[in-house]
Amino acid sequence: MMPPYNTRLHAFIAGHEGPWVIQESRRILGAPLEKASRLRIESGWHDAASTHAVWVLHGATSNERYVNQEEKSLLVSRQEGLGRAQATQAVMIPIQKKPEWWAMTQEERRRIFEERSRHTRIGLDYLPAIARRLHHCRDLTHAEPFDFITWFEFAPADADAFDRLLQALRQTEEWRYVQREAELRLTRA
Amino acid sequence: MMPPYNTRLHAFIAGHEGPWVIQESRRILGAPLEKASRLRIESGWHDAASTHAVWVLHGATSNERYVNQEEKSLLVSRQEGLGRAQATQAVMIPIQKKPEWWAMTQEERRRIFEERSRHTRIGLDYLPAIARRLHHCRDLTHAEPFDFITWFEFAPADADAFDRLLQALRQTEEWRYVQREAELRLTRA
Repeated sequence: MMPPYNTRLHAFIAGHEGPWVIQESRRILGAPLEKASRLRIESGWHDAASTHAVWVLHGATSNERYVNQEEKSLLVSRQEGLGRAQATQAVMIPIQKKPEWWAMTQEERRRIFEERSRHTRIGLDYLPAIARRLHHCRDLTHAEPFDFITWFEFAPADADAFDRLLQALRQTEEWRYVQREAELRLTRA
Repeated sequence: MMPPYNTRLHAFIAGHEGPWVIQESRRILGAPLEKASRLRIESGWHDAASTHAVWVLHGATSNERYVNQEEKSLLVSRQEGLGRAQATQAVMIPIQKKPEWWAMTQEERRRIFEERSRHTRIGLDYLPAIARRLHHCRDLTHAEPFDFITWFEFAPADADAFDRLLQALRQTEEWRYVQREAELRLTRA
């Protein structure tokens, strides 16, 4: 008998079904994702064959790795959750970082992530408009092609702001440690 | 078709087979582990039924979470690997921490782990005699009963030193965040 799934695990299932219409699938760095028309997000682990999916990616929400207490308080006071009625647009960004990133100590990673790249501070400027959920993929049971999946939701009026957020993050020192990245643009069906 | 396993994943399989004889299974905090006579460690994911095991625990080695550059250099210069011929004794310690631990920010956890509890510094005093490998269980695909599994190996002559190490770690502030802990004492068959 299989033990129960990690309750923080989510599967991103791309195929021909689901509440999210994939409007565009961009290759940012490295191998692109296969084309699919719809996406759904489910709890637990799902394999591509039994779900008739084109691809399935998994990730688990987890404890925070980089924010300090002040940043955490700001995040908690400003951020809103997923599923808001007006948030009919979504972007899914799976990222794989270079081995050099993972070989660094926590404090070196924090220094690049926040002190030099201001990752959290940049994101704070776009709250509460851009809702965000981060999923970790690196330490799951099965080898996943990406290290993280970030899921963003926002209203159509905030789409330009989202593009500015993304542009700002891709100009940082932290982003030089990305070796594979894809970007899916979706709208709620 | 299932994707390949995470190459850093290990299964601790307790039953009636394996190169390690379980001499003693101590309940330290919370529910005890079921009794078994032997243990083996395999790569990948293994379920209890198909391996005829009494229990199976999983964990993945991963990137470092707390050590700074100086501590990492000291660790790398002093530590030795598992499998040394003279290291015929082993101790397996699965630990689950309280939800309060996981709700803290990284810097709060680091402050308790190292600045106040000196976890890494205490361990350094016992290198290279005590070899150690840490496995993370919290973000796997399936829900695991523990957050970490640490595996220690040492020569019989260093068994007293190991007991002192364990006693020192259990007197720290960090240890107050442990809510379940078991301790298996093993010898190589």
